[in-house]
Amino acid sequence: MTDQRGSDIDAEGHRLDPEDWADFRGGLEALLTACLNRLAHARDLPWIAPPADMAATLALGRDEPGRDAVQVMQEMAGQIMPYATGNTHPRFFGWVHGTGLPVGLAADLVAATMNANLGGRNHGAMAVERSVLRWLCDIAGLPSEAFGVLTGGTSQATVLALSAARVARFGDAVRRDGVAGLPPVRVYAAAGTHTCVSKALELLGHGRSALVSVPLSDGRMDVDALRASIAADVAAGHAPLMIVATSGSVNTGSFDDLDAAADVAREAGIWLHVDAAFGFWTRIADAPWRALTDGLGRADSIACDMHKWLSVPYDCGACLVRDGATLRAAFADRPDYLVSSDTGLAGGEHWFCDYGIDLSRGFRALKVWAAVRTHGVAAFGAAISDNCRQAAHMGALAEASDLLDLACPVVSNVVCLKPHAGDAAAIASALQTSGEAVFSTTRIDGALCLRAAIVNHRTTRVDIKQAVVAAEREIARHAG
Amino acid sequence: MTDQRGSDIDAEGHRLDPEDWADFRGGLEALLTACLNRLAHARDLPWIAPPADMAATLALGRDEPGRDAVQVMQEMAGQIMPYATGNTHPRFFGWVHGTGLPVGLAADLVAATMNANLGGRNHGAMAVERSVLRWLCDIAGLPSEAFGVLTGGTSQATVLALSAARVARFGDAVRRDGVAGLPPVRVYAAAGTHTCVSKALELLGHGRSALVSVPLSDGRMDVDALRASIAADVAAGHAPLMIVATSGSVNTGSFDDLDAAADVAREAGIWLHVDAAFGFWTRIADAPWRALTDGLGRADSIACDMHKWLSVPYDCGACLVRDGATLRAAFADRPDYLVSSDTGLAGGEHWFCDYGIDLSRGFRALKVWAAVRTHGVAAFGAAISDNCRQAAHMGALAEASDLLDLACPVVSNVVCLKPHAGDAAAIASALQTSGEAVFSTTRIDGALCLRAAIVNHRTTRVDIKQAVVAAEREIARHAG
Repeated sequence: MTDQRGSDIDAEGHRLDPEDWADFRGGLEALLTACLNRLAHARDLPWIAPPADMAATLALGRDEPGRDAVQVMQEMAGQIMPYATGNTHPRFFGWVHGTGLPVGLAADLVAATMNANLGGRNHGAMAVERSVLRWLCDIAGLPSEAFGVLTGGTSQATVLALSAARVARFGDAVRRDGVAGLPPVRVYAAAGTHTCVSKALELLGHGRSALVSVPLSDGRMDVDALRASIAADVAAGHAPLMIVATSGSVNTGSFDDLDAAADVAREAGIWLHVDAAFGFWTRIADAPWRALTDGLGRADSIACDMHKWLSVPYDCGACLVRDGATLRAAFADRPDYLVSSDTGLAGGEHWFCDYGIDLSRGFRALKVWAAVRTHGVAAFGAAISDNCRQAAHMGALAEASDLLDLACPVVSNVVCLKPHAGDAAAIASALQTSGEAVFSTTRIDGALCLRAAIVNHRTTRVDIKQAVVAAEREIARHAG
Repeated sequence: MTDQRGSDIDAEGHRLDPEDWADFRGGLEALLTACLNRLAHARDLPWIAPPADMAATLALGRDEPGRDAVQVMQEMAGQIMPYATGNTHPRFFGWVHGTGLPVGLAADLVAATMNANLGGRNHGAMAVERSVLRWLCDIAGLPSEAFGVLTGGTSQATVLALSAARVARFGDAVRRDGVAGLPPVRVYAAAGTHTCVSKALELLGHGRSALVSVPLSDGRMDVDALRASIAADVAAGHAPLMIVATSGSVNTGSFDDLDAAADVAREAGIWLHVDAAFGFWTRIADAPWRALTDGLGRADSIACDMHKWLSVPYDCGACLVRDGATLRAAFADRPDYLVSSDTGLAGGEHWFCDYGIDLSRGFRALKVWAAVRTHGVAAFGAAISDNCRQAAHMGALAEASDLLDLACPVVSNVVCLKPHAGDAAAIASALQTSGEAVFSTTRIDGALCLRAAIVNHRTTRVDIKQAVVAAEREIARHAG
C-alpha cells in the first residue's frame, strides 16, 4: 500500500481503501468492542494522566511509513483511548464538560461514512441540519422565521451573533468599509460574563474595551444599572449595539432575567443576545429550572452548546437568530464557483456557508438529531433536572459540613465550595489524580474555590456524597 | 427510558446509557456493516437527490418522544446515509471535496467514545493534536518554534492568521481598543483569491475594501504589481499588513510563486500568509507538483485543509504560524475558572483555547493522525500525484475534443472545460442527476465552464475518460 505505485498510472485508484475489506472489518469490530466496553464501564474509568512518553509514541515522521490499518486501530484503542479528558466518568464535575452519549458513536460512524460537506448544496445531510436548527428554534421559543447554523461551540456562535447584530445595525457598509467610520460600539454584559464575549469583540475589531461590565444585583445583571449605562453611552455619542444576557454563568450558574433584559433591549432599540451555552437546556427541565430561561424566545440571537447538557459528543454548538435573514445578510458572499443552480447537486435552499464563516462543514447535525430522536425531550429534561437536584444536594452537604462552605447560592447546576483549609487547586489536583472526583477551581469574592458544574447524566446522588466526602478528607489532611 | 423518572432522585443515573448493552451492540454492529458496505461499494454509489419528503421524515417535535436506539440506527442507515454529498464516488470532481477514508471511521469511533474536549488540560488527545501540528509544520518546512491549531477548515484558519498578523503588527492595543485608531489596513492577494480572505476582513472589522486585488501574470500574482501596490499604499498612509499568496487557486488550480511573494514580504516587512487549502499537499507529491509550493516554509502563516487532499472525513483544517507565540498573543485570555495548575488534569502545556476562538474543541486530530499513521506519506503523495496526472489527462482529452475546450491551462488538479454548446450549469446538473459524474461550474473569462477539481483517491484514468465522454454526450444533445 505504501510503495511506488504512483509511478504506474494504470495501477491507480483505491490506493487508500483497504486491500482486504474483511480484515479491515474485523479490526473495526474489535475496536467497536473496545469502545463499547469503555462506555459500559465508564463508572470505573476516571481521568488518568497520560504517560510521559506519549508525545514520543505518537510522533509522526516527515516520511512516516504506512502500516496495517488494524494495527493503527489497536494503537488508538491501547495507547490513546485510555487517556481521555475523563468527562465520561460519573464524578467528573470539572468545567462544564458534557458526558457524551453511546448513540453518538452510531451518528459519528454514519457521518464519517457519508463524509458530507454541509457548506451547501442539495443533499440529505443538509436536511438533517435544517431539522435540528428548526427544533432548537422551537425549544428556544423563537418564531418561524428564525434560523441559524451549527458551530463548534458557543464561542464561535457569539462571533456570528455579534456580526449579525453589527450588520443589522450598520448595514452592508460595515462589511465593505469596516468599523473605523462607526461611532464606538458598546456591548453590555453582567460582570463575570464569559470571556467569549470579549474575545469576540477583539476578533471583530471593536476591542475588548467595547464591553461594558454591568454590576450584579443578587447575582444577576442589574437592569437599572444597564439602563443607566446605555443612556450614558448614548449621551456620549457611543453606539450601544448589544446586550448579552447570560443563561448559566460559568462561575456560579446564575441566570440573568431575560424578560427584564428584553424589555431594556426593546426600549433602547438594541440587540439582545443570550449566552445560553449550558443554560439553554433548562428550557426542557422541570418547572423550577425551566423558569430560569423564561423570556428566551424574546432574544434576537442565542448561543448554545449541544456538547454540554445535551451530552452529544464534542463538539457542537449553535447560533440561532430571530430573523434568519439577518444572519444571512452578515455572511452571504458566494464566489462564481459556488453559484447555486435550480436542479442537481448545486441546488437546495439554505446553504450554510451563507450563515457563517465556514465553507467546509462536517456533519455535526447528525449526532444531535440521533440524540434527540433516541432519547426524546423528556428523558433529557429529566436528566437535566436531576443534575440541578444533585447540585442542590451538594450545596446542602456543604452547608452541613465542618470542613467547607458553600461559596455562593446554588441556582442551577453549579456549586462552588470554599475549603476551610488547604489550597483549592491542590485539593482539586489530588482528587483528580486519585480518580475520586474532578472538580475544577475558580475564584468567588477573591477566594479560590472548588467548583462543580454538574452536566453529567451518569451522576447519581451517591456520587455527589462520595465527591464531597473525598473533598472533606483532603481538606482535613491539610487542616491536620 | 423516557418516562417520569426524573421525579425519583434515587432512580437517576445511567438514564442515557443503553438499558441493554448487548442489544445496543448488535444494532451498532449492523450499522457498521451498512457503513462498510457503503464504502466498499463507493464506486456504485453516486450522489442521488434526497426525497422530497425528507424534511418531514426528519422533523423533530417540541416534545419528541424517545425510541429504541437500534431503530434510530436503522433510520440513519436507511433514510439518511444514502443521501450524502456524493464525494465518495470516483467520478465526483465537484468543488474541492475530499473523498474520505475508511480509517476515518475508526478514528471517529474512538473520538466519539473518548468525548475529549481539546480546549485545554492535560490528557492524551492533546498530545495527538500537538503531534499532528508538529507533523504539519514539518511538512510545510516551518521552523521548530512554529505551532498552530486545528480548525474546521481554511476559512477559520484565515481568520486566525489575519488576527495573528494584526496583533503582531499593532500589539495588544488592537485587542484592547479595536481597529478604529489604526491607519487603514491593506491585505494583498491575487485577483480571484478565495472569498474566505474578504470574508475574514469583513469579520475582523477592516471591511472587504481592505483587500487589494493584485493582477495576474501568467495566472499567478504579478509580484511587480504587488510591489507597486504596497509602495503606493505606504505613500498614501495606509498600513500594508499581509500578503496572501495562494497555493492552488479555487478556479484554476494555479499557484502563486511563494519565493517571490516571500521576497516582497521581507522587503516590505509585512506578513506572508499562504492559502494552501488543497495545494499544501503538493508538498508530498512528486517533483513536478511539489515544486509548486517551493518556498512554503518561508510563510508567516499557512492555512490548509485535511478534509481535501488528505482525505480525512469532514471537517478538519489547520492554521500554522511560523512563530507559535504570535498566535498565542492574539488569542490567549483565560478566565479564573480556566487557570492552569502544575499538576492534575488542569495541567499540561499548549492549551488550544489560547490559540484561537474556540474553548470547546472536538478531537479532529485523531482522524488526521490515524490517516497518516495508516497510509504513510508516500501513499498519500502517490494518490495526489495521480490526481494531477489525471487532470493533465482530462486536459488532453479536452484539447482533442470537438465538443469542448480547455478553458485554461492545467497546472495541478483543476480542469475547466468550456462546452461548445449548451449551458454548463444545465450540463453539470444533468450529469449529477444521471449519476455519471459530478462537475461543478465556474466562470473563466466570463464564460460559464464545467470545472473538475480532482482530489479523489478512488478516481482512475478510466473514470476521467468516462466523465469526459458523458460531458461530450450532453453537449452534443444541446448542439443537436
